[in-house]
Amino acid sequence: MKLDLLFLPSEIRNSDLQEKLVIVIDVLRASSTIVTALSNGAKDIIPVESQEDATRLMQEIGRKYVLLCGERGGQKIEGFDLGNSPFEYTNEVIQEKTLIFCSTNGSRAIVKASAAAKVMVGCFINLGTVLENVLESKPKEVVLLCSGKEDRFSLEDTVCAGMMVSRLKERLTESLELSDSAQAGLQVYGQHQKSLLKMLNSSLHGKYLLSLGFQEDLVYCSQVDSIPVVPVLETGHLVKAPL
Amino acid sequence: MKLDLLFLPSEIRNSDLQEKLVIVIDVLRASSTIVTALSNGAKDIIPVESQEDATRLMQEIGRKYVLLCGERGGQKIEGFDLGNSPFEYTNEVIQEKTLIFCSTNGSRAIVKASAAAKVMVGCFINLGTVLENVLESKPKEVVLLCSGKEDRFSLEDTVCAGMMVSRLKERLTESLELSDSAQAGLQVYGQHQKSLLKMLNSSLHGKYLLSLGFQEDLVYCSQVDSIPVVPVLETGHLVKAPL
Repeated sequence: MKLDLLFLPSEIRNSDLQEKLVIVIDVLRASSTIVTALSNGAKDIIPVESQEDATRLMQEIGRKYVLLCGERGGQKIEGFDLGNSPFEYTNEVIQEKTLIFCSTNGSRAIVKASAAAKVMVGCFINLGTVLENVLESKPKEVVLLCSGKEDRFSLEDTVCAGMMVSRLKERLTESLELSDSAQAGLQVYGQHQKSLLKMLNSSLHGKYLLSLGFQEDLVYCSQVDSIPVVPVLETGHLVKAPL
Repeated sequence: MKLDLLFLPSEIRNSDLQEKLVIVIDVLRASSTIVTALSNGAKDIIPVESQEDATRLMQEIGRKYVLLCGERGGQKIEGFDLGNSPFEYTNEVIQEKTLIFCSTNGSRAIVKASAAAKVMVGCFINLGTVLENVLESKPKEVVLLCSGKEDRFSLEDTVCAGMMVSRLKERLTESLELSDSAQAGLQVYGQHQKSLLKMLNSSLHGKYLLSLGFQEDLVYCSQVDSIPVVPVLETGHLVKAPL
Protein backbone atom coordinates (compact mmCIF):
# COMPACT_ATOMS: atom_id res chain seq x y z
CA MET A 1 0.00 0.00 0.00
CA LYS A 2 1.19 3.48 -0.88
CA LEU A 3 0.60 6.07 1.83
CA ASP A 4 0.75 9.78 1.14
CA LEU A 5 0.06 12.80 3.34
CA LEU A 6 -1.13 16.22 2.18
CA PHE A 7 -0.47 19.03 4.64
CA LEU A 8 -3.04 21.23 2.91
CA PRO A 9 -6.05 20.83 0.62
CA SER A 10 -4.22 23.07 -1.88
CA GLU A 11 -1.92 20.08 -2.53
CA ILE A 12 -4.83 18.15 -4.05
CA ARG A 13 -4.80 17.48 -7.75
CA ASN A 14 -8.17 16.02 -8.64
CA SER A 15 -6.77 13.78 -11.35
CA ASP A 16 -4.51 12.19 -8.76
CA LEU A 17 -7.30 11.22 -6.38
CA GLN A 18 -9.53 9.12 -8.61
CA GLU A 19 -8.09 5.72 -7.67
CA LYS A 20 -7.38 6.56 -4.06
CA LEU A 21 -8.89 6.35 -0.62
CA VAL A 22 -8.73 9.72 1.16
CA ILE A 23 -9.02 10.25 4.92
CA VAL A 24 -9.94 13.86 5.67
CA ILE A 25 -8.53 15.03 9.01
CA ASP A 26 -9.72 18.11 10.89
CA VAL A 27 -9.05 17.35 14.54
CA LEU A 28 -10.21 20.79 15.77
CA ARG A 29 -13.04 20.28 15.24
CA ALA A 30 -14.96 19.31 12.10
CA SER A 31 -13.85 15.66 11.92
CA SER A 32 -14.42 15.14 15.64
CA THR A 33 -17.85 16.77 15.47
CA ILE A 34 -18.94 14.83 12.38
CA VAL A 35 -17.92 11.53 14.01
CA THR A 36 -19.84 12.51 17.15
CA ALA A 37 -22.95 13.53 15.21
CA LEU A 38 -23.16 10.22 13.34
CA SER A 39 -22.47 8.32 16.54
CA ASN A 40 -25.30 10.19 18.28
CA GLY A 41 -27.89 9.38 15.66
CA ALA A 42 -27.76 11.94 12.85
CA LYS A 43 -29.15 10.42 9.64
CA ASP A 44 -26.54 11.97 7.38
CA ILE A 45 -24.33 15.05 7.01
CA ILE A 46 -23.89 17.10 3.86
CA PRO A 47 -20.58 18.99 3.90
CA VAL A 48 -20.58 22.26 1.96
CA GLU A 49 -17.87 24.78 1.12
CA SER A 50 -19.59 28.05 1.97
CA GLN A 51 -22.32 29.60 4.05
CA GLU A 52 -24.12 30.49 0.83
CA ASP A 53 -24.05 26.85 -0.32
CA ALA A 54 -25.47 25.83 3.07
CA THR A 55 -28.37 28.26 2.86
CA ARG A 56 -29.16 27.43 -0.77
CA LEU A 57 -29.19 23.70 -0.04
CA MET A 58 -31.38 24.23 3.00
CA GLN A 59 -33.94 26.05 0.83
CA GLU A 60 -33.86 23.23 -1.75
CA ILE A 61 -34.39 20.47 0.82
CA GLY A 62 -36.77 22.43 3.05
CA ARG A 63 -36.04 24.14 6.36
CA LYS A 64 -37.89 21.64 8.54
CA TYR A 65 -35.98 18.62 7.24
CA VAL A 66 -32.48 19.84 8.05
CA LEU A 67 -30.28 21.41 10.69
CA LEU A 68 -27.89 24.13 9.59
CA CYS A 69 -24.52 23.57 11.25
CA GLY A 70 -21.20 25.31 11.11
CA GLU A 71 -18.79 27.96 12.28
CA ARG A 72 -16.79 30.96 11.22
CA GLY A 73 -13.91 32.02 13.45
CA GLY A 74 -14.75 29.10 15.76
CA GLN A 75 -18.23 30.48 16.60
CA LYS A 76 -21.65 29.33 15.40
CA ILE A 77 -22.75 31.11 12.21
CA GLU A 78 -25.57 33.59 12.87
CA GLY A 79 -28.95 32.06 12.10
CA PHE A 80 -27.57 28.51 12.10
CA ASP A 81 -28.88 25.80 14.44
CA LEU A 82 -25.59 24.42 15.67
CA GLY A 83 -21.93 25.45 15.75
CA ASN A 84 -18.84 23.24 15.56
CA SER A 85 -18.56 21.92 19.12
CA PRO A 86 -19.14 18.15 19.44
CA PHE A 87 -21.01 18.79 22.71
CA GLU A 88 -23.85 20.48 20.83
CA TYR A 89 -24.55 17.32 18.83
CA THR A 90 -26.58 15.38 21.38
CA ASN A 91 -29.00 12.62 20.46
CA GLU A 92 -32.02 14.76 21.43
CA VAL A 93 -31.03 17.50 19.03
CA ILE A 94 -29.89 15.55 15.96
CA GLN A 95 -31.65 12.15 16.03
CA GLU A 96 -32.57 11.13 12.44
CA LYS A 97 -31.79 14.61 11.14
CA THR A 98 -29.92 15.61 7.99
CA LEU A 99 -27.20 18.08 8.91
CA ILE A 100 -25.87 20.64 6.44
CA PHE A 101 -22.35 21.24 7.67
CA CYS A 102 -20.21 24.25 6.85
CA SER A 103 -16.90 24.79 8.65
CA THR A 104 -13.93 26.95 7.72
CA ASN A 105 -11.52 24.12 6.98
CA GLY A 106 -12.93 20.61 7.40
CA SER A 107 -16.07 20.71 5.29
CA ARG A 108 -14.19 22.49 2.50
CA ALA A 109 -11.51 19.79 2.57
CA ILE A 110 -14.14 17.04 2.35
CA VAL A 111 -15.76 18.70 -0.67
CA LYS A 112 -12.34 19.17 -2.29
CA ALA A 113 -11.56 15.47 -1.75
CA SER A 114 -14.80 14.26 -3.28
CA ALA A 115 -13.18 13.29 -6.59
CA ALA A 116 -11.51 10.39 -4.77
CA ALA A 117 -12.59 6.77 -5.12
CA LYS A 118 -13.51 6.75 -1.44
CA VAL A 119 -13.57 9.48 1.22
CA MET A 120 -13.58 8.87 4.98
CA VAL A 121 -13.45 11.31 7.88
CA GLY A 122 -10.87 10.67 10.59
CA CYS A 123 -9.44 12.16 13.76
CA PHE A 124 -8.11 10.94 17.10
CA ILE A 125 -11.47 9.85 18.50
CA ASN A 126 -12.16 7.34 15.69
CA LEU A 127 -8.58 6.67 14.61
CA GLY A 128 -8.40 2.92 15.19
CA THR A 129 -11.78 2.23 13.62
CA VAL A 130 -10.91 4.27 10.52
CA LEU A 131 -7.71 2.29 10.08
CA GLU A 132 -9.52 -1.05 10.50
CA ASN A 133 -11.91 0.10 7.79
CA VAL A 134 -9.02 1.12 5.53
CA LEU A 135 -7.27 -2.22 5.98
CA GLU A 136 -10.46 -4.10 5.17
CA SER A 137 -10.99 -2.26 1.90
CA LYS A 138 -7.40 -3.08 0.85
CA PRO A 139 -6.77 0.07 -1.19
CA LYS A 140 -3.61 0.40 -3.27
CA GLU A 141 -3.19 4.05 -2.35
CA VAL A 142 -4.27 6.01 0.69
CA VAL A 143 -4.03 9.77 1.10
CA LEU A 144 -4.16 11.41 4.53
CA LEU A 145 -5.54 14.89 3.89
CA CYS A 146 -4.95 17.47 6.61
CA SER A 147 -7.55 20.23 6.45
CA GLY A 148 -5.18 22.91 7.73
CA LYS A 149 -6.28 26.21 9.17
CA GLU A 150 -7.32 28.81 6.62
CA ASP A 151 -4.90 27.43 4.02
CA ARG A 152 -2.05 27.21 6.50
CA PHE A 153 -0.33 24.21 8.11
CA SER A 154 -2.13 22.65 11.08
CA LEU A 155 -0.02 20.95 13.74
CA GLU A 156 -2.87 18.90 15.20
CA ASP A 157 -3.95 17.51 11.83
CA THR A 158 -0.35 16.64 10.99
CA VAL A 159 0.18 14.86 14.32
CA CYS A 160 -3.05 12.89 13.82
CA ALA A 161 -2.01 11.93 10.28
CA GLY A 162 1.41 10.94 11.65
CA MET A 163 -0.28 8.72 14.23
CA MET A 164 -2.20 7.01 11.43
CA VAL A 165 1.09 6.46 9.56
CA SER A 166 2.61 5.03 12.73
CA ARG A 167 -0.24 2.58 13.34
CA LEU A 168 -0.37 1.47 9.69
CA LYS A 169 3.39 0.96 9.77
CA GLU A 170 3.04 -1.35 12.76
CA ARG A 171 0.39 -3.38 10.95
CA LEU A 172 1.90 -3.47 7.46
CA THR A 173 5.59 -3.89 8.22
CA GLU A 174 6.75 -4.95 4.75
CA SER A 175 4.22 -3.73 2.27
CA LEU A 176 3.81 -0.06 3.18
CA GLU A 177 5.38 2.58 0.94
CA LEU A 178 5.58 6.01 2.59
CA SER A 179 5.87 9.29 0.70
CA ASP A 180 8.31 11.99 1.86
CA SER A 181 5.45 13.85 3.52
CA ALA A 182 4.08 10.73 5.23
CA GLN A 183 7.54 10.18 6.73
CA ALA A 184 7.69 13.80 7.83
CA GLY A 185 4.26 13.45 9.48
CA LEU A 186 5.50 10.36 11.31
CA GLN A 187 8.48 12.34 12.62
CA VAL A 188 6.31 15.21 13.84
CA TYR A 189 3.96 12.73 15.54
CA GLY A 190 6.95 11.14 17.28
CA GLN A 191 7.62 14.43 19.07
CA HIS A 192 4.07 14.71 20.40
CA GLN A 193 2.88 11.15 20.96
CA LYS A 194 3.43 11.32 24.72
CA SER A 195 0.82 13.99 25.21
CA LEU A 196 -1.71 14.72 22.52
CA LEU A 197 -3.70 17.04 24.79
CA LYS A 198 -0.59 19.09 25.56
CA MET A 199 0.04 19.34 21.83
CA LEU A 200 -3.54 20.49 21.21
CA ASN A 201 -3.35 23.03 24.03
CA SER A 202 -0.11 24.47 22.68
CA SER A 203 -1.11 24.55 19.00
CA LEU A 204 -2.07 27.82 17.34
CA HIS A 205 -5.62 26.62 16.69
CA GLY A 206 -5.93 25.05 20.14
CA LYS A 207 -4.87 28.28 21.83
CA TYR A 208 -7.45 30.16 19.80
CA LEU A 209 -10.22 27.76 20.85
CA LEU A 210 -9.07 27.98 24.47
CA SER A 211 -9.41 31.76 24.24
CA LEU A 212 -13.04 31.22 23.17
CA GLY A 213 -13.68 28.95 26.17
CA PHE A 214 -13.65 25.58 24.39
CA GLN A 215 -11.20 23.77 26.72
CA GLU A 216 -13.54 20.77 27.09
CA ASP A 217 -13.62 20.40 23.31
CA LEU A 218 -9.84 20.01 23.24
CA VAL A 219 -9.95 17.30 25.92
CA TYR A 220 -12.72 15.53 24.00
CA CYS A 221 -10.91 15.74 20.66
CA SER A 222 -7.69 14.32 22.15
CA GLN A 223 -9.25 11.04 23.31
CA VAL A 224 -7.92 8.39 20.97
CA ASP A 225 -10.27 5.59 19.93
CA SER A 226 -13.19 6.80 22.01
CA ILE A 227 -15.86 6.50 19.27
CA PRO A 228 -15.94 3.50 16.87
CA VAL A 229 -17.66 5.30 13.98
CA VAL A 230 -16.35 5.97 10.47
CA PRO A 231 -18.05 8.67 8.40
CA VAL A 232 -17.85 7.80 4.71
CA LEU A 233 -18.91 10.00 1.78
CA GLU A 234 -21.68 8.61 -0.44
CA THR A 235 -22.87 10.85 -3.29
CA GLY A 236 -22.19 13.99 -1.29
CA HIS A 237 -23.60 12.71 2.03
CA LEU A 238 -21.53 11.51 4.96
CA VAL A 239 -23.03 8.39 6.50
CA LYS A 240 -21.90 5.86 9.05
CA ALA A 241 -19.86 3.09 7.41
CA PRO A 242 -21.11 -0.39 8.28
CA LEU A 243 -18.85 -2.01 10.87
CA MET B 1 12.05 37.41 16.70
CA LYS B 2 9.09 35.50 15.32
CA LEU B 3 10.00 32.64 13.02
CA ASP B 4 7.47 31.03 10.70
CA LEU B 5 7.82 28.30 8.06
CA LEU B 6 5.66 27.88 4.98
CA PHE B 7 5.75 24.39 3.47
CA LEU B 8 4.34 25.70 0.20
CA PRO B 9 4.07 29.02 -1.66
CA SER B 10 0.28 28.51 -1.62
CA GLU B 11 0.42 29.34 2.11
CA ILE B 12 1.48 32.91 1.30
CA ARG B 13 -0.93 35.71 2.00
CA ASN B 14 0.54 38.84 0.46
CA SER B 15 -0.91 41.08 3.15
CA ASP B 16 0.96 39.06 5.75
CA LEU B 17 4.39 39.47 4.17
CA GLN B 18 4.73 43.23 4.02
CA GLU B 19 6.63 43.68 7.28
CA LYS B 20 8.59 40.45 7.06
CA LEU B 21 11.90 39.09 5.87
CA VAL B 22 11.40 36.02 3.66
CA ILE B 23 14.04 33.41 2.88
CA VAL B 24 13.09 31.44 -0.24
CA ILE B 25 14.40 27.87 -0.15
CA ASP B 26 14.66 25.60 -3.19
CA VAL B 27 17.53 23.24 -2.38
CA LEU B 28 17.11 21.19 -5.60
CA ARG B 29 18.14 23.30 -7.32
CA ALA B 30 17.09 26.91 -7.95
CA SER B 31 18.39 28.41 -4.68
CA SER B 32 21.67 26.51 -4.98
CA THR B 33 22.09 27.54 -8.63
CA ILE B 34 21.26 31.22 -7.98
CA VAL B 35 23.79 31.36 -5.12
CA THR B 36 26.41 29.76 -7.39
CA ALA B 37 25.68 32.13 -10.27
CA LEU B 38 26.10 35.26 -8.13
CA SER B 39 29.21 33.78 -6.53
CA ASN B 40 30.69 33.12 -9.98
CA GLY B 41 30.24 36.66 -11.24
CA ALA B 42 26.74 37.08 -12.68
CA LYS B 43 25.70 40.75 -12.55
CA ASP B 44 22.13 40.04 -11.49
CA ILE B 45 19.34 37.49 -11.85
CA ILE B 46 15.72 38.23 -12.71
CA PRO B 47 13.41 35.46 -11.48
CA VAL B 48 10.25 34.98 -13.55
CA GLU B 49 7.19 32.78 -13.14
CA SER B 50 6.83 31.36 -16.63
CA GLN B 51 8.69 30.58 -19.81
CA GLU B 52 6.54 33.19 -21.58
CA ASP B 53 7.56 35.86 -19.05
CA ALA B 54 11.20 34.92 -19.61
CA THR B 55 10.96 35.26 -23.38
CA ARG B 56 9.02 38.53 -23.22
CA LEU B 57 11.53 40.06 -20.81
CA MET B 58 14.42 38.90 -22.98
CA GLN B 59 12.89 40.69 -25.96
CA GLU B 60 12.42 43.88 -23.94
CA ILE B 61 15.99 43.94 -22.64
CA GLY B 62 17.60 42.67 -25.82
CA ARG B 63 18.87 39.18 -26.58
CA LYS B 64 22.56 40.05 -26.44
CA TYR B 65 22.42 41.51 -22.93
CA VAL B 66 20.94 38.50 -21.15
CA LEU B 67 21.19 34.77 -20.72
CA LEU B 68 17.97 32.77 -20.67
CA CYS B 69 18.13 30.21 -17.88
CA GLY B 70 15.73 27.62 -16.54
CA GLU B 71 14.23 24.18 -16.56
CA ARG B 72 11.07 22.23 -16.99
CA GLY B 73 10.99 18.66 -15.66
CA GLY B 74 14.59 19.13 -14.50
CA GLN B 75 15.91 19.66 -18.04
CA LYS B 76 17.03 22.88 -19.78
CA ILE B 77 14.16 24.59 -21.60
CA GLU B 78 14.53 24.33 -25.38
CA GLY B 79 16.11 27.43 -26.86
CA PHE B 80 17.41 28.61 -23.47
CA ASP B 81 21.11 29.18 -22.79
CA LEU B 82 21.41 27.37 -19.48
CA GLY B 83 19.42 24.86 -17.42
CA ASN B 84 19.19 24.55 -13.64
CA SER B 85 22.42 22.75 -12.77
CA PRO B 86 24.87 24.85 -10.72
CA PHE B 87 27.73 23.32 -12.72
CA GLU B 88 26.60 25.16 -15.85
CA TYR B 89 27.06 28.53 -14.18
CA THR B 90 30.82 28.96 -14.56
CA ASN B 91 32.55 32.32 -14.48
CA GLU B 92 33.41 32.10 -18.21
CA VAL B 93 29.76 31.72 -19.14
CA ILE B 94 28.02 34.20 -16.84
CA GLN B 95 30.59 36.90 -15.91
CA GLU B 96 28.82 40.29 -15.72
CA LYS B 97 25.69 38.89 -17.37
CA THR B 98 22.06 39.46 -16.45
CA LEU B 99 20.34 36.09 -16.10
CA ILE B 100 16.61 35.66 -16.67
CA PHE B 101 15.77 32.68 -14.52
CA CYS B 102 12.71 30.49 -14.86
CA SER B 103 12.42 27.27 -12.85
CA THR B 104 9.38 25.18 -12.00
CA ASN B 105 9.33 25.92 -8.29
CA GLY B 106 12.06 28.25 -7.04
CA SER B 107 11.72 31.25 -9.33
CA ARG B 108 7.92 31.17 -8.95
CA ALA B 109 8.29 31.15 -5.16
CA ILE B 110 10.64 34.15 -5.29
CA VAL B 111 8.18 36.11 -7.44
CA LYS B 112 5.33 35.15 -5.09
CA ALA B 113 7.36 36.36 -2.09
CA SER B 114 8.18 39.72 -3.63
CA ALA B 115 5.55 41.58 -1.58
CA ALA B 116 7.74 41.03 1.48
CA ALA B 117 9.82 43.78 3.09
CA LYS B 118 12.97 41.83 2.20
CA VAL B 119 13.54 38.64 0.20
CA MET B 120 16.68 36.49 0.38
CA VAL B 121 17.50 33.19 -1.30
CA GLY B 122 18.81 30.39 0.90
CA CYS B 123 19.81 26.75 0.82
CA PHE B 124 22.39 24.48 2.43
CA ILE B 125 25.39 25.90 0.55
CA ASN B 126 24.90 29.47 1.87
CA LEU B 127 22.97 28.68 5.04
CA GLY B 128 25.31 30.19 7.63
CA THR B 129 25.86 33.38 5.63
CA VAL B 130 22.13 33.88 5.12
CA LEU B 131 21.52 33.57 8.85
CA GLU B 132 24.33 36.02 9.68
CA ASN B 133 22.69 38.44 7.29
CA VAL B 134 19.27 37.87 8.90
CA LEU B 135 20.65 38.45 12.39
CA GLU B 136 22.35 41.66 11.29
CA SER B 137 19.15 43.11 9.87
CA LYS B 138 17.31 42.39 13.17
CA PRO B 139 13.89 41.71 11.65
CA LYS B 140 10.87 41.27 13.90
CA GLU B 141 9.47 38.47 11.75
CA VAL B 142 11.17 35.97 9.47
CA VAL B 143 9.40 33.55 7.14
CA LEU B 144 11.16 30.48 5.77
CA LEU B 145 9.42 29.76 2.47
CA CYS B 146 9.85 26.26 1.05
CA SER B 147 9.34 26.26 -2.72
CA GLY B 148 7.93 22.74 -2.79
CA LYS B 149 7.74 20.59 -5.88
CA GLU B 150 4.90 21.44 -8.23
CA ASP B 151 2.68 22.64 -5.37
CA ARG B 152 3.49 19.60 -3.21
CA PHE B 153 5.57 19.24 -0.04
CA SER B 154 9.32 19.05 -0.52
CA LEU B 155 11.35 17.10 2.04
CA GLU B 156 14.67 18.72 1.16
CA ASP B 157 13.33 22.27 1.47
CA THR B 158 11.69 21.42 4.79
CA VAL B 159 14.89 19.88 6.19
CA CYS B 160 16.86 22.96 5.09
CA ALA B 161 14.30 25.27 6.70
CA GLY B 162 14.43 23.10 9.83
CA MET B 163 18.22 23.46 9.90
CA MET B 164 17.81 27.24 9.76
CA VAL B 165 15.37 27.05 12.68
CA SER B 166 17.86 24.92 14.60
CA ARG B 167 20.76 27.33 14.05
CA LEU B 168 18.67 30.40 14.90
CA LYS B 169 17.46 28.67 18.05
CA GLU B 170 21.06 28.11 19.14
CA ARG B 171 21.85 31.78 18.60
CA LEU B 172 18.66 33.33 19.99
CA THR B 173 17.93 31.13 22.98
CA GLU B 174 15.43 33.38 24.74
CA SER B 175 13.95 35.70 22.19
CA LEU B 176 12.90 33.35 19.40
CA GLU B 177 9.19 32.58 18.96
CA LEU B 178 8.56 29.54 16.74
CA SER B 179 5.30 28.89 14.89
CA ASP B 180 3.77 25.39 14.86
CA SER B 181 5.20 24.80 11.39
CA ALA B 182 8.67 26.06 12.35
CA GLN B 183 8.67 23.55 15.22
CA ALA B 184 7.54 20.81 12.86
CA GLY B 185 10.34 21.70 10.44
CA LEU B 186 12.83 21.48 13.30
CA GLN B 187 11.55 17.99 14.14
CA VAL B 188 11.83 16.79 10.55
CA TYR B 189 15.37 18.23 10.36
CA GLY B 190 16.28 16.36 13.54
CA GLN B 191 15.63 13.07 11.77
CA HIS B 192 17.92 13.89 8.85
CA GLN B 193 20.70 16.05 10.28
CA LYS B 194 23.20 13.21 10.39
CA SER B 195 23.23 12.81 6.61
CA LEU B 196 21.85 15.52 4.40
CA LEU B 197 23.15 13.82 1.26
CA LYS B 198 21.41 10.58 2.18
CA MET B 199 18.21 12.59 2.69
CA LEU B 200 18.60 14.25 -0.72
CA ASN B 201 19.31 10.92 -2.42
CA SER B 202 16.22 9.34 -0.87
CA SER B 203 13.83 12.25 -1.46
CA LEU B 204 11.27 12.12 -4.26
CA HIS B 205 12.86 15.05 -6.07
CA GLY B 206 16.37 13.77 -5.45
CA LYS B 207 15.53 10.37 -6.90
CA TYR B 208 14.08 12.06 -9.97
CA LEU B 209 17.24 14.11 -10.50
CA LEU B 210 19.37 10.98 -10.00
CA SER B 211 17.35 9.29 -12.73
CA LEU B 212 18.32 12.19 -15.04
CA GLY B 213 22.02 11.75 -14.17
CA PHE B 214 22.44 14.73 -11.82
CA GLN B 215 24.12 12.86 -8.93
CA GLU B 216 26.93 15.45 -8.71
CA ASP B 217 24.33 18.21 -8.30
CA LEU B 218 22.95 16.48 -5.21
CA VAL B 219 26.41 16.21 -3.65
CA TYR B 220 27.03 19.88 -4.45
CA CYS B 221 23.68 21.04 -3.05
CA SER B 222 24.23 19.12 0.22
CA GLN B 223 27.47 20.92 1.15
CA VAL B 224 26.54 23.18 4.04
CA ASP B 225 28.20 26.62 4.19
CA SER B 226 30.31 26.12 1.09
CA ILE B 227 29.50 29.50 -0.55
CA PRO B 228 29.31 32.72 1.51
CA VAL B 229 26.93 34.58 -0.81
CA VAL B 230 23.42 35.86 -0.07
CA PRO B 231 21.15 36.68 -3.02
CA VAL B 232 18.77 39.48 -2.09
CA LEU B 233 15.87 40.80 -4.17
CA GLU B 234 16.05 44.46 -5.18
CA THR B 235 13.24 45.77 -7.41
CA GLY B 236 12.83 42.41 -9.07
CA HIS B 237 16.52 41.64 -9.48
CA LEU B 238 18.52 39.25 -7.30
CA VAL B 239 21.91 40.70 -6.45
CA LYS B 240 24.69 39.76 -4.07
CA ALA B 241 24.08 41.24 -0.61
CA PRO B 242 27.08 43.20 0.69
CA LEU B 243 28.94 41.15 3.32
